[in-house]
Amino acid sequence: MQALLTEILDQVRPLIGQGKVADYIPALADVPANQLGIAVYSNDGELYCAGDAHTPFSVQSISKVFSLVQAIEHSGEDIWQRLGHEPSGQPFNSLVQLEFERGKPRNPFINAGALVICDINQSRFAAPVLSMRDFVRRLAGNPQIVVDRRVAESEYQHRARNAAAAYLMQSFGNFHNDVEAVLRSYFSYCALRMSCADLARAFCFLANDGFCKHSGQQILSARQSKQVNAIMATSGLYDEAGNFAYRVGLPGKSGVGGGIIAVVPGQFSVCVWSPELNAAGNSLAGIKALELLSERIGWSVF
Amino acid sequence: MQALLTEILDQVRPLIGQGKVADYIPALADVPANQLGIAVYSNDGELYCAGDAHTPFSVQSISKVFSLVQAIEHSGEDIWQRLGHEPSGQPFNSLVQLEFERGKPRNPFINAGALVICDINQSRFAAPVLSMRDFVRRLAGNPQIVVDRRVAESEYQHRARNAAAAYLMQSFGNFHNDVEAVLRSYFSYCALRMSCADLARAFCFLANDGFCKHSGQQILSARQSKQVNAIMATSGLYDEAGNFAYRVGLPGKSGVGGGIIAVVPGQFSVCVWSPELNAAGNSLAGIKALELLSERIGWSVF
Amino acid sequence: MQALLTEILDQVRPLIGQGKVADYIPALADVPANQLGIAVYSNDGELYCAGDAHTPFSVQSISKVFSLVQAIEHSGEDIWQRLGHEPSGQPFNSLVQLEFERGKPRNPFINAGALVICDINQSRFAAPVLSMRDFVRRLAGNPQIVVDRRVAESEYQHRARNAAAAYLMQSFGNFHNDVEAVLRSYFSYCALRMSCADLARAFCFLANDGFCKHSGQQILSARQSKQVNAIMATSGLYDEAGNFAYRVGLPGKSGVGGGIIAVVPGQFSVCVWSPELNAAGNSLAGIKALELLSERIGWSVF
Amino acid sequence: MQALLTEILDQVRPLIGQGKVADYIPALADVPANQLGIAVYSNDGELYCAGDAHTPFSVQSISKVFSLVQAIEHSGEDIWQRLGHEPSGQPFNSLVQLEFERGKPRNPFINAGALVICDINQSRFAAPVLSMRDFVRRLAGNPQIVVDRRVAESEYQHRARNAAAAYLMQSFGNFHNDVEAVLRSYFSYCALRMSCADLARAFCFLANDGFCKHSGQQILSARQSKQVNAIMATSGLYDEAGNFAYRVGLPGKSGVGGGIIAVVPGQFSVCVWSPELNAAGNSLAGIKALELLSERIGWSVF
Repeated sequence: MQALLTEILDQVRPLIGQGKVADYIPALADVPANQLGIAVYSNDGELYCAGDAHTPFSVQSISKVFSLVQAIEHSGEDIWQRLGHEPSGQPFNSLVQLEFERGKPRNPFINAGALVICDINQSRFAAPVLSMRDFVRRLAGNPQIVVDRRVAESEYQHRARNAAAAYLMQSFGNFHNDVEAVLRSYFSYCALRMSCADLARAFCFLANDGFCKHSGQQILSARQSKQVNAIMATSGLYDEAGNFAYRVGLPGKSGVGGGIIAVVPGQFSVCVWSPELNAAGNSLAGIKALELLSERIGWSVF
Repeated sequence: MQALLTEILDQVRPLIGQGKVADYIPALADVPANQLGIAVYSNDGELYCAGDAHTPFSVQSISKVFSLVQAIEHSGEDIWQRLGHEPSGQPFNSLVQLEFERGKPRNPFINAGALVICDINQSRFAAPVLSMRDFVRRLAGNPQIVVDRRVAESEYQHRARNAAAAYLMQSFGNFHNDVEAVLRSYFSYCALRMSCADLARAFCFLANDGFCKHSGQQILSARQSKQVNAIMATSGLYDEAGNFAYRVGLPGKSGVGGGIIAVVPGQFSVCVWSPELNAAGNSLAGIKALELLSERIGWSVF
Repeated sequence: MQALLTEILDQVRPLIGQGKVADYIPALADVPANQLGIAVYSNDGELYCAGDAHTPFSVQSISKVFSLVQAIEHSGEDIWQRLGHEPSGQPFNSLVQLEFERGKPRNPFINAGALVICDINQSRFAAPVLSMRDFVRRLAGNPQIVVDRRVAESEYQHRARNAAAAYLMQSFGNFHNDVEAVLRSYFSYCALRMSCADLARAFCFLANDGFCKHSGQQILSARQSKQVNAIMATSGLYDEAGNFAYRVGLPGKSGVGGGIIAVVPGQFSVCVWSPELNAAGNSLAGIKALELLSERIGWSVF
Repeated sequence: MQALLTEILDQVRPLIGQGKVADYIPALADVPANQLGIAVYSNDGELYCAGDAHTPFSVQSISKVFSLVQAIEHSGEDIWQRLGHEPSGQPFNSLVQLEFERGKPRNPFINAGALVICDINQSRFAAPVLSMRDFVRRLAGNPQIVVDRRVAESEYQHRARNAAAAYLMQSFGNFHNDVEAVLRSYFSYCALRMSCADLARAFCFLANDGFCKHSGQQILSARQSKQVNAIMATSGLYDEAGNFAYRVGLPGKSGVGGGIIAVVPGQFSVCVWSPELNAAGNSLAGIKALELLSERIGWSVF
């Protein structure tokens, strides 16, 4: 596996230079484009790494999975009163569908849906950001994981589109806490800094029927774990969810920091990272690396 | 398996009466609502049946998978110049997205996409309907399969919405043959009459890396077979694709005749049939039966 | 007036070369771009002409006013069961709003609305095209007016977008006659060939409370005449209706043949013609000429 | 005129009870529904009143005309870089079009457009609300006019939809000041309390080529005055602008407080008030009263 990962990174490295690092906030635009890492964590607890697998980066929308898992943990099926689990067919930050569907977001992985999930968690936790940070540290088995305050603040300064979504939902009665406070939490989650190794470990429970071996905790029931994977499979990669299923065939979730996590149910969790994005906002080299892995070792769930 | 299927049908039978048989054409409205059947076909060639598994019904949109497979067989990746493989997030017959995206349908399982696929096949075959019928007979191993001319004609009489989609695509240069002729073919495919047993057999190649054991033919490559499954997983059940993944966790395709086929990669193909539909246009008892099967024997791909 | 018209044409002539002749059908693309004419017809029966005011051209969408007037004449307020009289805020040939509003077009001057009006007239007249031609001849006082068969046929060959609109309305039950037959009539109306002088005369009744002095006929009631002007004022120039009101301040209707008619209630009807169009599909020099006229002799209704 | 106004109020009074007082904020829901007033102000300075013409009410969206006039006064044509003057064809508070058109509102009379105008004025004035109040006092010749702080505060508490619009525009770079500050100003303008008599007087300059006789000031140029009227004619009554032109035939602007102002260019300004609204959010009895006036004394501009 180790050799394979190294080989795959070598194969996709030439793609660097063909994508574009996210630049909507300065703190992300600064990230050196030539970084590339991958980590695979097996259900029996082996970690395989290659490239910059131990360099922390901004997880961004990958945090939407953590938020969803936290919400399912404490609120269960009730959350589906407030959002759906259908693919949206619209850009991740579009308000069009949200207005037509009267403030109920399509799924937890578009921004509006993630904001509702944060609103749910905000109602639940006295200190939502700390709760999340500790939850993620526990999942990853790494007490060093932190929120990058500079990134969170910078995102907050550029909050306009997300604020619009939150206020639109509030106008339909589907937002319960103070908008600004929830946005602060939301951007803090996005600003978590984790490495490929951290993320592969943190998501291993989704490959293992909800059980996190290294912490010894049942994070979700087997059924809930499958459900989260199902939502990732249909809605995890923005406008490119269909293409990711077509090319890679795994449940996955991407972030504009250039990370992508994917799950091979029953076997592995994997995280790949390369900061340059394709036109759909997903890591260009990252998707290619996962496609090669899927082809080479038959990982597709289909 | 046999016993399990019977048990599951017994469990879902109480749902009959809670849905609504498709009634947009008289020929479908006539179908007795209390029919219920299921067939499972294993990769090693065993067929398990329960209920009305041998009663032929109108396959309707399930035929969109046959058309897609035919198109991939002879035109390969080229077809993706003309349509996408992303979920649409819109009703199956909506023209809104089609206009915004300049006549390029999102995927082959919404009506517009299926019409483009039929247009591609129409350019290829001298007698497209016969070619399709023979292809399906071969896949199902049943030379008795026919197109129900009365249903096809009735659908043609009610073609307005599909005609609008086809002309809209023509206005964008994405429709090459005579609209009326392609619509005739399209409705003929929808009007194929097949039983659960026929359909389970016909789709076994998608559970078997593209190989159809009983005919001894490699219908698609392993990779293509996974790709078709991926498209079914993200877009196979209209507006309910996400929910189907969430509840059942299998690639599948439904039709308004009340049939649903699903694929357990590496193991089984399955077809369930009950004519009453839910609000999203999918068989009410059918989805429930697949959900129970998925729970009972851990069929979810996730 | 004569001198003023000549002066205004001289002022706008330099715009020729900055627009684009409609080229979606060959028969229109052929029209020499350097033609420019204007005709003003006063309520006391004086005709003032300048430039190519007597050269016939393809009236195109200006015919939508004739169709509407015919429909009001024989069906009165009933027509508003089937379409609205609100501005659409969408391109003239968009299907998006039509689908959202379940097949009821916003107004009679977008294509879908004009098609419904033609459908209404089709139900009424045994020979709709002849009836229309004779109606227009009578209004213009010119028995030489003809339908250009070559243009009508060419438009029919490129009917896809309009066919899509008609079938979409049929799918909502808002289209009663054979789609192809109504499209034939519709394109025949668009293909009427009339000069500026013909059109200024033909529309004089709208400046005169519904009364056509030269034919001695009350075409519409005073109230109906105002209503038609009101619809032209809010919806007569496609996406540019607001801008036309802002710059010119008159009820008007344009066609892609480069003609624009406008009405100065109580005083004049006017027609200007220059084949080159602006980005919104309205005659570039034509709008400028009307703006100058409006400024110079205070014609704005506002 | 006096007698006519009284007669018309008697004719429309039976409509009271068939509409619905705006109730999205408590401060408006409290207004007694059975009030009804009208005031007509002639270009030669005569004021004709009937009913509750001297009772102040919440002008709400009628203030959008004041804001627009203020913006034109000091910023001229430049404002059209930031918004259009086309009818929108969408509900007054919709974000759909705003997103498609990248944050540039269609016109100054939908909420998004009025917010941009307020943003422009906010950049210009040190104390925007005081400037507006004084401007309105001067126009109406009434130094008693005040902002109802309770209404403004209540609207601010229910700002979610307008906040969403403002943030969405900010995300496209079309909002320059602090969103919350501009919303405060915007709601203060809406909360101006004026009577029919105040409003008829305040808008007389639009009937008089921009000149306000009682203050002796040229508020706008004649051309600008016509332009404002043109925008009211195509976009002044929300989704019902076309219907208002069709039935009444005058430039006008309504507010959810139940007021409607209209302009008879060259002759009169008029204000009618009745708190109950129709389904489109316009005063039910108010529109009917204006329709009767228009019919009875031939006021339509068409």
